Amino acid sequence: MTNLQITKGMRDFPPEEKIVRDEIASTIKQSFELYGFNPIETPILERYETLAAKFAAGEESDALKETFKLTDQGKRELGLRFDLTVPFCRFVGMNPNFKAPFKKYCSGNVFRDGPIKTGRYRQFMQMDPDIVGAKSMLADAEILSLTETIFGKLGFDVVIELNNRKIIDGVMDSVKIPEKDRFNVIISIDKLKKAGEDNVRKELKEKGLKDNQIKKIISCFKAGKDNNKTLANLRKLLKNVTGKEGVKETEELLDYLDMFNVKNVVFNPSLARGLAYYTGPVFEVFMKDSGIKSSIAAGGRYDKIIGSYLQTNKEFPATGISFGIDVITEALKEKKRVAKKSVVKVFVIPIGTLKESIKVVQRLRGEGINADFDIAGRGISKNLQYVDSYEIPYAVFIGGDELKMKKVKLRDMKSGKEEMVSVEDVVKRLKE
Amino acid sequence: MTNLQITKGMRDFPPEEKIVRDEIASTIKQSFELYGFNPIETPILERYETLAAKFAAGEESDALKETFKLTDQGKRELGLRFDLTVPFCRFVGMNPNFKAPFKKYCSGNVFRDGPIKTGRYRQFMQMDPDIVGAKSMLADAEILSLTETIFGKLGFDVVIELNNRKIIDGVMDSVKIPEKDRFNVIISIDKLKKAGEDNVRKELKEKGLKDNQIKKIISCFKAGKDNNKTLANLRKLLKNVTGKEGVKETEELLDYLDMFNVKNVVFNPSLARGLAYYTGPVFEVFMKDSGIKSSIAAGGRYDKIIGSYLQTNKEFPATGISFGIDVITEALKEKKRVAKKSVVKVFVIPIGTLKESIKVVQRLRGEGINADFDIAGRGISKNLQYVDSYEIPYAVFIGGDELKMKKVKLRDMKSGKEEMVSVEDVVKRLKE
Repeated sequence: MTNLQITKGMRDFPPEEKIVRDEIASTIKQSFELYGFNPIETPILERYETLAAKFAAGEESDALKETFKLTDQGKRELGLRFDLTVPFCRFVGMNPNFKAPFKKYCSGNVFRDGPIKTGRYRQFMQMDPDIVGAKSMLADAEILSLTETIFGKLGFDVVIELNNRKIIDGVMDSVKIPEKDRFNVIISIDKLKKAGEDNVRKELKEKGLKDNQIKKIISCFKAGKDNNKTLANLRKLLKNVTGKEGVKETEELLDYLDMFNVKNVVFNPSLARGLAYYTGPVFEVFMKDSGIKSSIAAGGRYDKIIGSYLQTNKEFPATGISFGIDVITEALKEKKRVAKKSVVKVFVIPIGTLKESIKVVQRLRGEGINADFDIAGRGISKNLQYVDSYEIPYAVFIGGDELKMKKVKLRDMKSGKEEMVSVEDVVKRLKE
Repeated sequence: MTNLQITKGMRDFPPEEKIVRDEIASTIKQSFELYGFNPIETPILERYETLAAKFAAGEESDALKETFKLTDQGKRELGLRFDLTVPFCRFVGMNPNFKAPFKKYCSGNVFRDGPIKTGRYRQFMQMDPDIVGAKSMLADAEILSLTETIFGKLGFDVVIELNNRKIIDGVMDSVKIPEKDRFNVIISIDKLKKAGEDNVRKELKEKGLKDNQIKKIISCFKAGKDNNKTLANLRKLLKNVTGKEGVKETEELLDYLDMFNVKNVVFNPSLARGLAYYTGPVFEVFMKDSGIKSSIAAGGRYDKIIGSYLQTNKEFPATGISFGIDVITEALKEKKRVAKKSVVKVFVIPIGTLKESIKVVQRLRGEGINADFDIAGRGISKNLQYVDSYEIPYAVFIGGDELKMKKVKLRDMKSGKEEMVSVEDVVKRLKE
């Protein structure tokens, strides 16, 4: 095999990347649990039929077009999951008799057999907290408070953009855009912030909209920095039931977010989110002052998927968000040097004292200190090179002299300072 | 969709199972790091060619026959990995310039599209520590000491069975069994412990072996409880180079295990291990006194795969073990009731005090206490039912009286005891 290759569009993570990824995942997991979310796990393969349901991916969606498809030996059609939400809905559909609300989180890899661009891979990791069985906007507020907590712990300066699908539908109703044309119009609206009003006006005209439609659309979707003003504007302009409900839900959600002391939420009525399944609030989180322009977490309310799977009128209101571990790792790398080459804290170098050195190593490990030692029987300078190359902070030498004195020589690799100390002292020092 | 189904042979893990799995995985991960292993990650999909290489799975192996196969949109042939060792070797082959020894671990799901039996699934999780670039039996000793540490932390009583592939090869050489027939003979040998000498003798005769061959095979592969006696017997019987090397490596390894104070190792010369790639020591871990008869961890030395991928004569000696998280979870369940329904420690019930209650909840979360509260606006008894059903240990009531007294009512759900205490006291109590 002359050209050893990894699967196209996928990545290996060596320790200097995996250690950081693990730390991020652990911070997020811990926060999920602080907020009372419990872990669940679903398999990586789903029946293709489950993924392709029109209320899930939707037959024409990119997600479905980019699904890795395969058949098992029993000729069943399967697919690698493209997100964690659809499998979660399938799971709840198969276990519908939980005590509501059911707060859970799911972590794992998802897959897209799509074009490869910078920062886009065919396998990527998501961590999703969701709440099922709660209609109240309090549930959405919990999700966003949790989101702010997590990014606070990661030291990120973020803005959470917020909208409600019902507002978009309300505007579309009010200017009488037929269902089938809406997606196309929304694509233009989504550019309002970036491309500016004039360009969007032009684009909508090219798409065949009339001047009065365009005027109303633009005036509804315009957003300022003051959430109350943006809301007041919509309250004036939107008079149909759906639109009014969207505004009311947003008011409620903003009130609750106040109680949770969530600060960084900006109401942006033009925020759409690509996936078909959202029914209420939608949210997308961006870095402030960063080269990373794509969202680092995104989600919303999806009240209809689970009921649709079950073909029942019973409602399964649900809301959640998805944290993109790959983009969050990139963002953390951009902020500070985070690469850590090793989890090892101390490396023991035996000088003709293998047996006694192993005892010391095992003692350190027993005390909860990540410890390693020379198993290659090399000389001191080779060992120090090894310790240096993995950036291990401490080395311990154990030779005949040390044994006689019942001490070891502890070297601080950064300062180069060496001391003769007892093993107890090494433990104390490294536990600090 | 009338029959909502999970993928055949796969499982969902609800919280009461996932919490335990997470705890097991966390204990193992922590121990890996105590022993100086660093995390890496490889993707779930590999090029089919990588998996099918004859020095990896081997074209005729069960692992390859049971590989989920698929093609991407660029018509590349891919497969879902069937273990973590082959992808790890591909990874090292693509990153061959590490400072040796390279100690790493990898955790993740692996897949087999095979027959479904009790306890056998098509997706299962493994956690593998490996050491590359160390020929010394000290590396294998580290792996086994780590293994004993992990099962000690899990409270398991285990026996580690140990053998060396060179001993098996040496015996085969000495009785002149041709390469092509060896696997078939080994299958019979593997039954020695269970089926007994007489049955194995009969089976080998049916397979066409001569009496003197059978006699020597049985006398070599017989194992007692005393490792030294078993070794002494082989030392007497095995005179060819390969066999003697196998015995010498085993002696060395047992000496090192002594230094590590590893107790539960039994040398069993008939232990074979199915996979083609092992070249030296092999090990398999079993529960003592348990209904679970299959191994809960297994591995060995595989010195040749990486070099073969690279088509180089440079040696990449490697050794490692694989922990089967699914069977370990079953074993833990068998030992004690471990199911935990929720990670939540305290549930706050507002009685007309939503705003103030949210403040308390956020305070508790800020202190690192997993806390949840009523987002459904239900009455006290419904809330208590909810808290009970998830086995949450504490409830906190906050009503008008409590607000006036600047206290909350803390209820110990187990004893039913209620107390009026300050929020500080709740924090102190729950942090204990």
